[in-house]
Amino acid sequence: MIGDFSPEEKDGFYKAVFSRRDVRSHFTSESIDEGILTRILNAAHHAPSVGFSQPWNFILIKNEETRKQVRDSFDKERIRASTLIEDPKRSKYLSLRLQGILDCAVNVCITYDPTKFGPFVIGRSSIPETGIYSVCCAIQNLWLAARAEGIGVGWVSILSNDDLKRILEIPDHVVPVAYLCLGHVSNFAEKPDLESAGWLPRLGLKDVIFYEKWNHENDPNWQQIHEMIVSNLDYA
Amino acid sequence: MIGDFSPEEKDGFYKAVFSRRDVRSHFTSESIDEGILTRILNAAHHAPSVGFSQPWNFILIKNEETRKQVRDSFDKERIRASTLIEDPKRSKYLSLRLQGILDCAVNVCITYDPTKFGPFVIGRSSIPETGIYSVCCAIQNLWLAARAEGIGVGWVSILSNDDLKRILEIPDHVVPVAYLCLGHVSNFAEKPDLESAGWLPRLGLKDVIFYEKWNHENDPNWQQIHEMIVSNLDYA
Repeated sequence: MIGDFSPEEKDGFYKAVFSRRDVRSHFTSESIDEGILTRILNAAHHAPSVGFSQPWNFILIKNEETRKQVRDSFDKERIRASTLIEDPKRSKYLSLRLQGILDCAVNVCITYDPTKFGPFVIGRSSIPETGIYSVCCAIQNLWLAARAEGIGVGWVSILSNDDLKRILEIPDHVVPVAYLCLGHVSNFAEKPDLESAGWLPRLGLKDVIFYEKWNHENDPNWQQIHEMIVSNLDYA
Repeated sequence: MIGDFSPEEKDGFYKAVFSRRDVRSHFTSESIDEGILTRILNAAHHAPSVGFSQPWNFILIKNEETRKQVRDSFDKERIRASTLIEDPKRSKYLSLRLQGILDCAVNVCITYDPTKFGPFVIGRSSIPETGIYSVCCAIQNLWLAARAEGIGVGWVSILSNDDLKRILEIPDHVVPVAYLCLGHVSNFAEKPDLESAGWLPRLGLKDVIFYEKWNHENDPNWQQIHEMIVSNLDYA
Protein backbone atom coordinates (compact mmCIF):
# COMPACT_ATOMS: atom_id res chain seq x y z
CA MET A 1 0.00 0.00 0.00
CA ILE A 2 2.92 2.35 0.60
CA GLY A 3 4.87 2.38 -2.69
CA ASP A 4 4.57 4.24 -5.97
CA PHE A 5 1.48 3.97 -8.13
CA SER A 6 1.52 1.92 -11.33
CA PRO A 7 0.01 3.60 -14.43
CA GLU A 8 -3.10 1.41 -14.00
CA GLU A 9 -3.50 2.39 -10.35
CA LYS A 10 -3.18 6.08 -11.27
CA ASP A 11 -5.75 5.64 -14.03
CA GLY A 12 -8.16 4.07 -11.56
CA PHE A 13 -7.77 6.98 -9.18
CA TYR A 14 -8.25 9.65 -11.84
CA LYS A 15 -11.20 7.77 -13.31
CA ALA A 16 -12.98 8.15 -9.96
CA VAL A 17 -12.20 11.88 -9.88
CA PHE A 18 -13.27 12.71 -13.42
CA SER A 19 -16.31 10.43 -13.76
CA ARG A 20 -17.83 11.18 -10.33
CA ARG A 21 -21.21 12.92 -10.68
CA ASP A 22 -23.79 14.57 -8.48
CA VAL A 23 -26.70 12.24 -9.19
CA ARG A 24 -30.32 13.33 -8.98
CA SER A 25 -32.27 11.61 -11.73
CA HIS A 26 -30.66 8.29 -12.65
CA PHE A 27 -31.22 6.17 -9.54
CA THR A 28 -32.52 2.62 -10.02
CA SER A 29 -34.47 0.66 -7.41
CA GLU A 30 -31.66 -1.89 -6.85
CA SER A 31 -30.44 -2.15 -3.25
CA ILE A 32 -26.79 -1.67 -2.28
CA ASP A 33 -24.80 -4.73 -1.25
CA GLU A 34 -23.71 -4.50 2.41
CA GLY A 35 -20.05 -5.15 1.56
CA ILE A 36 -20.04 -2.30 -0.93
CA LEU A 37 -21.65 0.10 1.53
CA THR A 38 -19.15 -0.92 4.22
CA ARG A 39 -16.20 -0.23 1.90
CA ILE A 40 -17.61 3.18 0.96
CA LEU A 41 -18.10 4.15 4.62
CA ASN A 42 -14.65 2.86 5.51
CA ALA A 43 -13.08 5.04 2.82
CA ALA A 44 -14.90 8.04 4.33
CA HIS A 45 -13.66 7.13 7.79
CA HIS A 46 -10.06 7.17 6.48
CA ALA A 47 -10.22 10.82 5.52
CA PRO A 48 -7.77 13.26 7.11
CA SER A 49 -9.00 15.08 10.21
CA VAL A 50 -7.58 17.99 12.16
CA GLY A 51 -5.61 16.64 15.12
CA PHE A 52 -6.80 13.11 14.14
CA SER A 53 -10.11 14.04 15.78
CA GLN A 54 -12.30 11.98 13.41
CA PRO A 55 -15.25 14.22 14.26
CA TRP A 56 -17.71 12.63 11.82
CA ASN A 57 -20.75 10.39 12.23
CA PHE A 58 -22.77 8.72 9.51
CA ILE A 59 -26.50 8.18 9.98
CA LEU A 60 -27.74 5.54 7.52
CA ILE A 61 -31.41 5.97 6.62
CA LYS A 62 -33.78 3.62 4.82
CA ASN A 63 -37.04 4.35 6.69
CA GLU A 64 -39.59 5.77 4.25
CA GLU A 65 -41.41 7.93 6.78
CA THR A 66 -38.15 9.63 7.76
CA ARG A 67 -37.26 10.22 4.12
CA LYS A 68 -40.66 11.72 3.40
CA GLN A 69 -40.16 14.22 6.18
CA VAL A 70 -36.78 15.18 4.69
CA ARG A 71 -38.35 15.45 1.23
CA ASP A 72 -40.98 17.81 2.70
CA SER A 73 -38.17 20.01 4.02
CA PHE A 74 -36.63 20.00 0.53
CA ASP A 75 -39.96 20.99 -1.08
CA LYS A 76 -40.36 23.90 1.32
CA GLU A 77 -36.79 25.18 0.88
CA ARG A 78 -36.92 24.78 -2.89
CA ILE A 79 -39.94 27.06 -3.16
CA ARG A 80 -38.40 29.53 -0.73
CA ALA A 81 -35.19 29.68 -2.80
CA SER A 82 -37.17 30.20 -6.00
CA THR A 83 -38.56 33.48 -4.63
CA LEU A 84 -35.00 34.87 -4.58
CA ILE A 85 -34.75 34.93 -8.38
CA GLU A 86 -36.85 36.13 -11.28
CA ASP A 87 -37.96 34.63 -14.56
CA PRO A 88 -36.61 33.21 -16.81
CA LYS A 89 -34.05 31.96 -14.26
CA ARG A 90 -36.81 31.09 -11.80
CA SER A 91 -38.67 28.84 -14.25
CA LYS A 92 -35.45 27.14 -15.25
CA TYR A 93 -34.55 26.57 -11.59
CA LEU A 94 -37.97 25.05 -10.90
CA SER A 95 -37.65 22.75 -13.92
CA LEU A 96 -34.42 21.17 -12.67
CA ARG A 97 -34.46 17.79 -10.97
CA LEU A 98 -32.57 18.44 -7.72
CA GLN A 99 -32.99 15.41 -5.45
CA GLY A 100 -33.56 11.66 -5.36
CA ILE A 101 -34.38 11.25 -1.66
CA LEU A 102 -37.11 8.64 -2.12
CA ASP A 103 -35.80 7.03 -5.33
CA CYS A 104 -32.37 5.96 -4.13
CA ALA A 105 -31.46 2.96 -1.96
CA VAL A 106 -30.02 4.70 1.09
CA ASN A 107 -29.84 8.22 2.53
CA VAL A 108 -26.81 9.17 4.62
CA CYS A 109 -26.63 12.19 6.90
CA ILE A 110 -23.04 13.11 7.80
CA THR A 111 -22.53 15.18 10.92
CA TYR A 112 -19.82 17.09 12.78
CA ASP A 113 -19.39 16.62 16.52
CA PRO A 114 -16.98 19.27 17.87
CA THR A 115 -16.84 17.61 21.31
CA LYS A 116 -15.19 14.42 20.03
CA PHE A 117 -11.70 14.07 21.60
CA GLY A 118 -12.08 17.73 22.71
CA PRO A 119 -12.02 20.38 23.91
CA PHE A 120 -8.34 20.70 22.85
CA VAL A 121 -7.79 19.34 19.35
CA ILE A 122 -4.34 19.86 17.80
CA GLY A 123 -4.53 22.38 14.97
CA ARG A 124 -8.10 23.53 15.72
CA SER A 125 -7.40 26.42 18.11
CA SER A 126 -6.51 29.06 15.52
CA ILE A 127 -9.11 28.13 12.89
CA PRO A 128 -11.98 26.26 14.60
CA GLU A 129 -13.71 25.69 11.24
CA THR A 130 -11.06 23.08 10.40
CA GLY A 131 -13.15 20.61 12.39
CA ILE A 132 -16.01 20.86 9.94
CA TYR A 133 -13.54 20.91 7.01
CA SER A 134 -12.41 17.43 8.11
CA VAL A 135 -15.96 16.16 7.76
CA CYS A 136 -16.07 17.54 4.20
CA CYS A 137 -12.91 15.58 3.36
CA ALA A 138 -14.69 12.44 4.57
CA ILE A 139 -17.67 13.29 2.36
CA GLN A 140 -15.44 13.58 -0.69
CA ASN A 141 -13.76 10.24 0.12
CA LEU A 142 -17.22 8.68 0.36
CA TRP A 143 -18.31 10.22 -2.93
CA LEU A 144 -15.26 8.99 -4.85
CA ALA A 145 -15.37 5.52 -3.28
CA ALA A 146 -19.03 5.25 -4.24
CA ARG A 147 -18.12 6.07 -7.84
CA ALA A 148 -15.41 3.39 -7.84
CA GLU A 149 -18.05 0.92 -6.59
CA GLY A 150 -20.55 1.99 -9.27
CA ILE A 151 -22.80 3.76 -6.76
CA GLY A 152 -24.19 7.23 -7.50
CA VAL A 153 -24.29 9.98 -4.88
CA GLY A 154 -26.39 13.15 -4.81
CA TRP A 155 -25.80 15.86 -2.18
CA VAL A 156 -29.10 17.53 -1.24
CA SER A 157 -28.34 20.97 0.19
CA ILE A 158 -31.78 22.50 -0.34
CA LEU A 159 -32.82 21.54 3.18
CA SER A 160 -33.28 23.16 6.57
CA ASN A 161 -30.72 22.00 9.12
CA ASP A 162 -33.28 22.67 11.85
CA ASP A 163 -35.64 20.22 10.14
CA LEU A 164 -32.84 17.64 9.79
CA LYS A 165 -31.92 17.92 13.46
CA ARG A 166 -35.54 17.45 14.52
CA ILE A 167 -36.24 14.56 12.14
CA LEU A 168 -33.02 12.66 12.92
CA GLU A 169 -32.90 13.57 16.66
CA ILE A 170 -29.49 15.22 16.27
CA PRO A 171 -28.42 17.03 19.48
CA ASP A 172 -27.89 20.77 19.61
CA HIS A 173 -24.10 20.73 19.61
CA VAL A 174 -23.83 18.52 16.50
CA VAL A 175 -23.93 20.03 12.98
CA PRO A 176 -25.51 18.21 10.02
CA VAL A 177 -22.94 18.80 7.24
CA ALA A 178 -24.34 16.81 4.33
CA TYR A 179 -27.45 14.88 3.37
CA LEU A 180 -26.58 12.36 0.65
CA CYS A 181 -28.63 10.04 -1.57
CA LEU A 182 -26.84 6.80 -2.51
CA GLY A 183 -27.89 4.20 -5.02
CA HIS A 184 -27.20 2.28 -8.19
CA VAL A 185 -27.71 4.36 -11.32
CA SER A 186 -28.79 3.69 -14.89
CA ASN A 187 -25.73 5.67 -15.99
CA PHE A 188 -23.21 8.28 -14.88
CA ALA A 189 -23.70 11.39 -16.99
CA GLU A 190 -20.74 12.52 -19.07
CA LYS A 191 -20.92 16.05 -17.66
CA PRO A 192 -22.41 17.67 -14.56
CA ASP A 193 -26.18 18.18 -14.94
CA LEU A 194 -25.91 21.95 -14.44
CA GLU A 195 -23.24 22.18 -17.16
CA SER A 196 -25.37 20.13 -19.61
CA ALA A 197 -28.43 22.22 -18.78
CA GLY A 198 -26.51 25.37 -19.68
CA TRP A 199 -26.90 26.77 -16.18
CA LEU A 200 -23.16 27.49 -15.75
CA PRO A 201 -19.98 26.64 -17.70
CA ARG A 202 -16.97 24.85 -16.28
CA LEU A 203 -14.19 27.34 -15.61
CA GLY A 204 -10.79 26.78 -17.17
CA LEU A 205 -8.06 25.64 -14.81
CA LYS A 206 -6.17 28.85 -15.61
CA ASP A 207 -9.08 30.87 -14.23
CA VAL A 208 -8.66 29.51 -10.70
CA ILE A 209 -4.85 29.60 -10.32
CA PHE A 210 -2.85 32.53 -8.92
CA TYR A 211 0.92 32.79 -8.43
CA GLU A 212 2.55 33.94 -5.17
CA LYS A 213 -0.26 36.37 -4.22
CA TRP A 214 -4.00 36.77 -4.74
CA ASN A 215 -4.95 37.86 -8.25
CA HIS A 216 -1.40 37.55 -9.67
CA GLU A 217 -2.11 35.69 -12.87
CA ASN A 218 1.43 35.55 -14.11
CA ASP A 219 4.88 35.30 -12.56
CA PRO A 220 8.32 34.69 -14.11
CA ASN A 221 9.00 31.85 -11.65
CA TRP A 222 5.84 30.07 -12.72
CA GLN A 223 6.08 30.63 -16.48
CA GLN A 224 6.37 26.96 -17.43
CA ILE A 225 3.36 25.71 -15.50
CA HIS A 226 1.36 28.78 -16.55
CA GLU A 227 1.91 27.94 -20.22
CA MET A 228 1.05 24.32 -19.58
CA ILE A 229 -2.19 25.23 -17.86
CA VAL A 230 -3.23 27.78 -20.48
CA SER A 231 -2.46 25.59 -23.49
CA ASN A 232 -3.90 22.34 -22.20
CA LEU A 233 -7.58 22.96 -22.83
CA ASP A 234 -8.86 19.42 -23.30
CA TYR A 235 -8.99 18.26 -19.69
CA ALA A 236 -11.01 15.20 -18.91
CA MET B 1 -14.18 7.02 -18.34
CA ILE B 2 -17.87 6.28 -17.75
CA GLY B 3 -18.04 2.50 -17.24
CA ASP B 4 -17.51 0.14 -14.33
CA PHE B 5 -14.19 -0.06 -12.53
CA SER B 6 -11.89 -3.05 -13.07
CA PRO B 7 -10.44 -4.64 -9.90
CA GLU B 8 -7.08 -2.91 -10.69
CA GLU B 9 -8.75 0.49 -11.07
CA LYS B 10 -10.57 0.02 -7.76
CA ASP B 11 -7.32 -1.00 -6.08
CA GLY B 12 -5.65 2.15 -7.38
CA PHE B 13 -8.40 4.31 -6.00
CA TYR B 14 -8.40 2.68 -2.55
CA LYS B 15 -4.60 2.76 -2.43
CA ALA B 16 -4.79 6.56 -2.68
CA VAL B 17 -7.38 6.70 0.11
CA PHE B 18 -5.62 4.39 2.56
CA SER B 19 -1.99 5.42 1.97
CA ARG B 20 -2.59 9.21 1.91
CA ARG B 21 -0.85 10.90 4.83
CA ASP B 22 -0.63 14.35 6.40
CA VAL B 23 3.09 14.97 5.85
CA ARG B 24 5.15 17.22 8.10
CA SER B 25 8.61 15.72 8.45
CA HIS B 26 9.50 13.64 5.39
CA PHE B 27 9.82 16.27 2.66
CA THR B 28 12.86 16.10 0.37
CA SER B 29 14.35 19.08 -1.49
CA GLU B 30 13.35 17.74 -4.94
CA SER B 31 11.18 20.08 -6.99
CA ILE B 32 7.78 19.02 -8.38
CA ASP B 33 7.49 18.45 -12.12
CA GLU B 34 5.12 20.97 -13.74
CA GLY B 35 3.05 18.25 -15.40
CA ILE B 36 2.50 16.52 -12.07
CA LEU B 37 1.47 19.74 -10.35
CA THR B 38 -0.92 20.54 -13.20
CA ARG B 39 -2.60 17.13 -12.90
CA ILE B 40 -2.98 17.52 -9.14
CA LEU B 41 -4.55 20.98 -9.51
CA ASN B 42 -6.81 19.75 -12.28
CA ALA B 43 -8.09 16.94 -10.04
CA ALA B 44 -8.89 19.55 -7.39
CA HIS B 45 -10.72 21.68 -9.95
CA HIS B 46 -12.92 18.69 -10.83
CA ALA B 47 -14.37 18.45 -7.34
CA PRO B 48 -18.12 18.80 -6.86
CA SER B 49 -19.37 22.28 -6.00
CA VAL B 50 -22.74 23.54 -4.86
CA GLY B 51 -24.69 24.82 -7.88
CA PHE B 52 -21.54 24.14 -10.00
CA SER B 53 -20.18 27.40 -8.55
CA GLN B 54 -16.49 26.29 -8.51
CA PRO B 55 -15.81 28.86 -5.78
CA TRP B 56 -12.14 27.91 -5.25
CA ASN B 57 -8.84 29.58 -6.08
CA PHE B 58 -5.35 28.14 -5.66
CA ILE B 59 -2.45 30.45 -4.84
CA LEU B 60 0.84 28.68 -5.64
CA ILE B 61 3.74 29.91 -3.51
CA LYS B 62 7.46 29.34 -3.87
CA ASN B 63 8.81 32.73 -2.67
CA GLU B 64 10.92 32.22 0.45
CA GLU B 65 10.17 35.59 2.03
CA THR B 66 6.44 34.90 1.79
CA ARG B 67 6.87 31.46 3.29
CA LYS B 68 8.92 32.82 6.17
CA GLN B 69 6.13 35.22 7.02
CA VAL B 70 3.67 32.31 7.06
CA ARG B 71 6.06 30.27 9.21
CA ASP B 72 6.23 33.20 11.66
CA SER B 73 2.43 33.11 11.90
CA PHE B 74 2.66 29.37 12.62
CA ASP B 75 5.27 29.91 15.37
CA LYS B 76 3.08 32.52 17.06
CA GLU B 77 -0.11 30.42 16.88
CA ARG B 78 1.68 27.28 18.03
CA ILE B 79 2.85 28.94 21.22
CA ARG B 80 -0.56 30.50 21.77
CA ALA B 81 -2.24 27.08 21.42
CA SER B 82 0.23 25.51 23.86
CA THR B 83 -1.01 27.80 26.62
CA LEU B 84 -4.44 26.17 26.35
CA ILE B 85 -3.17 22.84 27.74
CA GLU B 86 -1.11 21.67 30.69
CA ASP B 87 1.80 19.30 31.10
CA PRO B 88 2.40 16.52 30.23
CA LYS B 89 0.15 17.17 27.21
CA ARG B 90 1.72 20.57 26.63
CA SER B 91 5.29 19.19 26.39
CA LYS B 92 4.14 16.43 24.09
CA TYR B 93 2.34 18.95 21.87
CA LEU B 94 5.45 21.14 21.69
CA SER B 95 7.62 18.13 20.78
CA LEU B 96 5.53 17.27 17.70
CA ARG B 97 6.68 18.29 14.22
CA LEU B 98 3.64 20.08 12.81
CA GLN B 99 4.67 21.84 9.58
CA GLY B 100 7.05 21.73 6.62
CA ILE B 101 6.43 25.22 5.21
CA LEU B 102 10.05 25.93 4.25
CA ASP B 103 11.18 22.33 3.59
CA CYS B 104 8.68 21.40 0.91
CA ALA B 105 8.73 22.36 -2.78
CA VAL B 106 5.52 24.38 -3.04
CA ASN B 107 2.96 25.94 -0.70
CA VAL B 108 -0.64 26.22 -1.87
CA CYS B 109 -3.27 28.43 -0.26
CA ILE B 110 -6.82 27.42 -1.23
CA THR B 111 -9.50 30.03 -0.89
CA TYR B 112 -13.29 30.42 -1.04
CA ASP B 113 -14.83 33.27 -3.01
CA PRO B 114 -18.57 33.46 -2.24
CA THR B 115 -19.16 36.07 -4.97
CA LYS B 116 -18.21 33.72 -7.82
CA PHE B 117 -21.26 33.13 -10.05
CA GLY B 118 -23.35 34.73 -7.26
CA PRO B 119 -25.26 36.05 -5.55
CA PHE B 120 -27.79 33.27 -6.31
CA VAL B 121 -26.12 29.86 -6.35
CA ILE B 122 -28.37 26.80 -6.67
CA GLY B 123 -28.45 24.87 -3.41
CA ARG B 124 -26.67 27.52 -1.35
CA SER B 125 -29.66 29.54 -0.10
CA SER B 126 -30.71 27.26 2.74
CA ILE B 127 -27.23 26.30 3.98
CA PRO B 128 -24.75 29.01 2.89
CA GLU B 129 -21.82 27.02 4.35
CA THR B 130 -22.12 24.57 1.45
CA GLY B 131 -20.01 27.03 -0.58
CA ILE B 132 -17.03 26.50 1.69
CA TYR B 133 -17.78 22.76 1.87
CA SER B 134 -17.22 22.62 -1.90
CA VAL B 135 -13.74 24.05 -1.45
CA CYS B 136 -12.99 21.30 1.09
CA CYS B 137 -14.01 18.67 -1.47
CA ALA B 138 -11.47 20.21 -3.87
CA ILE B 139 -8.81 20.04 -1.16
CA GLN B 140 -9.45 16.34 -0.64
CA ASN B 141 -9.26 15.69 -4.40
CA LEU B 142 -5.94 17.53 -4.46
CA TRP B 143 -4.64 15.55 -1.50
CA LEU B 144 -5.53 12.16 -3.00
CA ALA B 145 -4.22 13.08 -6.46
CA ALA B 146 -0.95 14.17 -4.89
CA ARG B 147 -0.66 10.78 -3.20
CA ALA B 148 -1.27 9.00 -6.51
CA GLU B 149 1.52 11.12 -8.03
CA GLY B 150 3.89 10.34 -5.13
CA ILE B 151 3.67 13.85 -3.70
CA GLY B 152 3.16 14.41 0.03
CA VAL B 153 0.76 17.03 1.40
CA GLY B 154 0.64 18.60 4.85
CA TRP B 155 -2.26 20.85 5.90
CA VAL B 156 -1.03 23.59 8.24
CA SER B 157 -3.97 24.85 10.28
CA ILE B 158 -1.98 26.42 13.13
CA LEU B 159 -2.10 29.80 11.41
CA SER B 160 -3.93 33.09 11.68
CA ASN B 161 -6.25 33.72 8.74
CA ASP B 162 -5.73 37.47 9.28
CA ASP B 163 -1.99 36.95 8.79
CA LEU B 164 -2.60 34.85 5.67
CA LYS B 165 -4.88 37.49 4.16
CA ARG B 166 -2.32 40.22 4.78
CA ILE B 167 0.68 38.21 3.53
CA LEU B 168 -1.06 36.92 0.37
CA GLU B 169 -3.09 40.10 -0.30
CA ILE B 170 -6.37 38.21 -0.13
CA PRO B 171 -9.40 40.56 -0.24
CA ASP B 172 -11.82 40.87 2.65
CA HIS B 173 -14.67 38.88 1.12
CA VAL B 174 -12.48 35.84 0.35
CA VAL B 175 -11.82 33.13 2.96
CA PRO B 176 -8.52 31.23 3.18
CA VAL B 177 -9.67 27.64 3.70
CA ALA B 178 -6.42 25.67 3.68
CA TYR B 179 -2.68 26.25 3.63
CA LEU B 180 -0.93 23.19 2.21
CA CYS B 181 2.70 22.09 1.90
CA LEU B 182 3.42 19.95 -1.17
CA GLY B 183 6.60 18.06 -2.01
CA HIS B 184 8.32 14.80 -2.69
CA VAL B 185 8.83 12.70 0.43
CA SER B 186 11.40 10.19 1.62
CA ASN B 187 8.49 7.90 2.51
CA PHE B 188 4.78 7.84 3.29
CA ALA B 189 4.32 6.73 6.88
CA GLU B 190 2.32 3.58 7.47
CA LYS B 191 0.03 5.29 9.98
CA PRO B 192 -0.92 8.91 10.74
CA ASP B 193 1.81 10.64 12.81
CA LEU B 194 -0.59 11.41 15.66
CA GLU B 195 -1.66 7.75 15.82
CA SER B 196 1.98 6.54 15.88
CA ALA B 197 2.86 9.13 18.53
CA GLY B 198 0.10 7.76 20.76
CA TRP B 199 -1.73 11.10 20.77
CA LEU B 200 -5.07 9.57 19.74
CA PRO B 201 -6.27 6.14 18.53
CA ARG B 202 -8.13 5.52 15.28
CA LEU B 203 -11.81 4.95 16.03
CA GLY B 204 -13.46 1.76 14.83
CA LEU B 205 -15.83 2.16 11.91
CA LYS B 206 -18.64 0.90 14.17
CA ASP B 207 -18.06 3.87 16.48
CA VAL B 208 -19.04 6.42 13.84
CA ILE B 209 -22.10 4.74 12.30
CA PHE B 210 -25.69 5.22 13.43
CA TYR B 211 -28.87 3.70 12.00
CA GLU B 212 -31.98 5.71 11.09
CA LYS B 213 -31.53 8.32 13.88
CA TRP B 214 -28.69 9.91 15.85
CA ASN B 215 -27.19 7.59 18.46
CA HIS B 216 -29.15 4.51 17.34
CA GLU B 217 -26.38 1.93 17.26
CA ASN B 218 -28.50 -0.99 16.24
CA ASP B 219 -31.56 -1.54 14.09
CA PRO B 220 -33.22 -4.73 12.84
CA ASN B 221 -33.20 -3.40 9.26
CA TRP B 222 -29.45 -2.85 9.39
CA GLN B 223 -28.45 -6.07 11.17
CA GLN B 224 -26.35 -7.50 8.33
CA ILE B 225 -24.20 -4.43 7.74
CA HIS B 226 -23.91 -3.87 11.49
CA GLU B 227 -22.43 -7.35 11.97
CA MET B 228 -20.11 -6.83 9.01
CA ILE B 229 -18.83 -3.55 10.41
CA VAL B 230 -18.37 -4.88 13.94
CA SER B 231 -16.62 -8.11 12.93
CA ASN B 232 -14.32 -6.71 10.25
CA LEU B 233 -11.65 -5.16 12.42
CA ASP B 234 -8.63 -5.37 10.15
CA TYR B 235 -9.33 -2.44 7.88
CA ALA B 236 -6.46 -1.05 5.83
